[in-house]
Amino acid sequence: MRHRVCNGTHNKKALLSDPQLFEDQFEELVTELTERDFTDPVLADALKRLREVLVYNTPGGKRNRGLSVIGSLRELVPPSQLTQDAVQRALLVGWCIELLQAFFLVADDIMDGSVTRRGQPCWYKKDGIGLDAINDSFLLEGSIYRLLRRYCRDQPYYVHLLELFNEVTFQTELGQALDLMTAPPTQIDLNRFTIERLPFTHFTSQWHSEEEHNNAKHILLEMGEFFQIQDDYLDCYGDPAVTGKIGTDIQDNKCSWLVVTALEIMTPKQREELEGCYGQHDEASVEKVKALYNSLQMPSLYQKYEEESYQRLQKLIASHAQNLPHSVFLNFAKKIYKRNK
Amino acid sequence: MRHRVCNGTHNKKALLSDPQLFEDQFEELVTELTERDFTDPVLADALKRLREVLVYNTPGGKRNRGLSVIGSLRELVPPSQLTQDAVQRALLVGWCIELLQAFFLVADDIMDGSVTRRGQPCWYKKDGIGLDAINDSFLLEGSIYRLLRRYCRDQPYYVHLLELFNEVTFQTELGQALDLMTAPPTQIDLNRFTIERLPFTHFTSQWHSEEEHNNAKHILLEMGEFFQIQDDYLDCYGDPAVTGKIGTDIQDNKCSWLVVTALEIMTPKQREELEGCYGQHDEASVEKVKALYNSLQMPSLYQKYEEESYQRLQKLIASHAQNLPHSVFLNFAKKIYKRNK
Repeated sequence: MRHRVCNGTHNKKALLSDPQLFEDQFEELVTELTERDFTDPVLADALKRLREVLVYNTPGGKRNRGLSVIGSLRELVPPSQLTQDAVQRALLVGWCIELLQAFFLVADDIMDGSVTRRGQPCWYKKDGIGLDAINDSFLLEGSIYRLLRRYCRDQPYYVHLLELFNEVTFQTELGQALDLMTAPPTQIDLNRFTIERLPFTHFTSQWHSEEEHNNAKHILLEMGEFFQIQDDYLDCYGDPAVTGKIGTDIQDNKCSWLVVTALEIMTPKQREELEGCYGQHDEASVEKVKALYNSLQMPSLYQKYEEESYQRLQKLIASHAQNLPHSVFLNFAKKIYKRNK
Repeated sequence: MRHRVCNGTHNKKALLSDPQLFEDQFEELVTELTERDFTDPVLADALKRLREVLVYNTPGGKRNRGLSVIGSLRELVPPSQLTQDAVQRALLVGWCIELLQAFFLVADDIMDGSVTRRGQPCWYKKDGIGLDAINDSFLLEGSIYRLLRRYCRDQPYYVHLLELFNEVTFQTELGQALDLMTAPPTQIDLNRFTIERLPFTHFTSQWHSEEEHNNAKHILLEMGEFFQIQDDYLDCYGDPAVTGKIGTDIQDNKCSWLVVTALEIMTPKQREELEGCYGQHDEASVEKVKALYNSLQMPSLYQKYEEESYQRLQKLIASHAQNLPHSVFLNFAKKIYKRNK
């Protein structure tokens, strides 16, 4: 691997910011995945496809997830104790998180029938791709474990890293199953949209028992909940030019924070109106839902929620962060709150 | 877990055959996956779906793969040294192989547009499932790692088991990528159908370097190659009532052993004819291809190939099995050769 070769580039690299280091590592990983191990010329076509899939779908996100690994490592380990190898591995694990995200996005876009993603056509919408994108999403997931094996196999935490990725993957898939069941396009039943069905509530009960052992989770759950509610809000109120995707939660009959919160405060008459237009694909119905959201002041309700969540978070960090540097969490918060994409 | 409870049922279990033990364990695993860990009532719907997906898609195959683990263990370890726990774990790893197979079948059927599988409608073809089956296939894959964690976490080979499943998964996905690229339904080009493109040749070069360390692989590769060629043969010549699926390799423009072998021996005139009807979906074209196969005596060519492969295998076992009991391999061979489904 290039980063194990000890030469002058290390000094140059030391001058680069983490986002630049992260960016630079990507091509190295793609080469690692597509030009090593499999030297059979017959596989060349498959590896060419893998390269295309990786390059089209992995970069282009906000990279908060990916950069959080190196960011947290820098908060936790003093610079003098941070080896070049440890930095490379943190960047690599960051890319593995981005790969996991890419795996889910490619597949979810097919299942949701989405059109654009990160400001470009969804992968499956490209000419000649179609449902073959299903196998492409598998390749993105499979790449994670090849990379972890290559870079982290000798680390004492290797098996925990494998288990963590497996766990998060399975939990996300269960959440997606619930999401798909709550929003069958042919079946409109607003009664199923309750606060308990919002995605962030799925796994809190499992985590509660471990809470005493890990206060960090409590803080991260608050941020996770906020992050997902924000996602729901931006699906309707975000600027597609900024978010890179056109929201379709209303058309797709999704159990979104907006509809759940709106249902809690609307009149029976408004509810009747919503029943007639939520989950419909025609422009007029979608606009009616949006007008209803506006008349219920959803943007200011959201702002209020964001502010309250932020205050809760500050308190949680102050009281629960204990042995961990507060900056680890505050850096996360800075990236998540007040974002518009 | 039930199998850790030491009570009278163990004695009863000892009287059961491995296929019966294997069968009996399935319901236990489904319960393990769907009734533990996640106690949040909101997840109940997702776990109900998981149960449906597991029950519909995992059993019903020939189970050669799944049963091979306990079968080999019994060849390798004398009965007096075989603990109840080791047997349970071998059965479990067997089910994980069946889950991996189910994961690929559910997804491949969507990509191939297949209609039936194992004598019943493909999962995605069922009412109300459709493309949600993509996420269901993920759940099947994710179940593997939950089970391995639960049953094998304390075993010294745990991390190797995780890596083995990851490796086989990735190699299969690369093979599927190649398969999909070789058979784009809109593009008929018989020149791309060469012996090198047949699936079993993809990974032999990677394995060659390890060959000295593991003679077993040499033997298993011969069986693997035969198994895949047999699959190609049965796609056209198998009885759907026995195989449980209706072959579509001709319509799907697949790089099958039949078309590759036929191309090698046919006249230029026959080739021209094949070009006009291979990869076409109308019944008349499919029948023309089959008539061509028959006129080229493909069934007797296949019988000849089967016999030669079997003889090669016997020689390989005699010369390479060395420290491993020959019966491990002969049992595999017995299940694979002369099968009709």
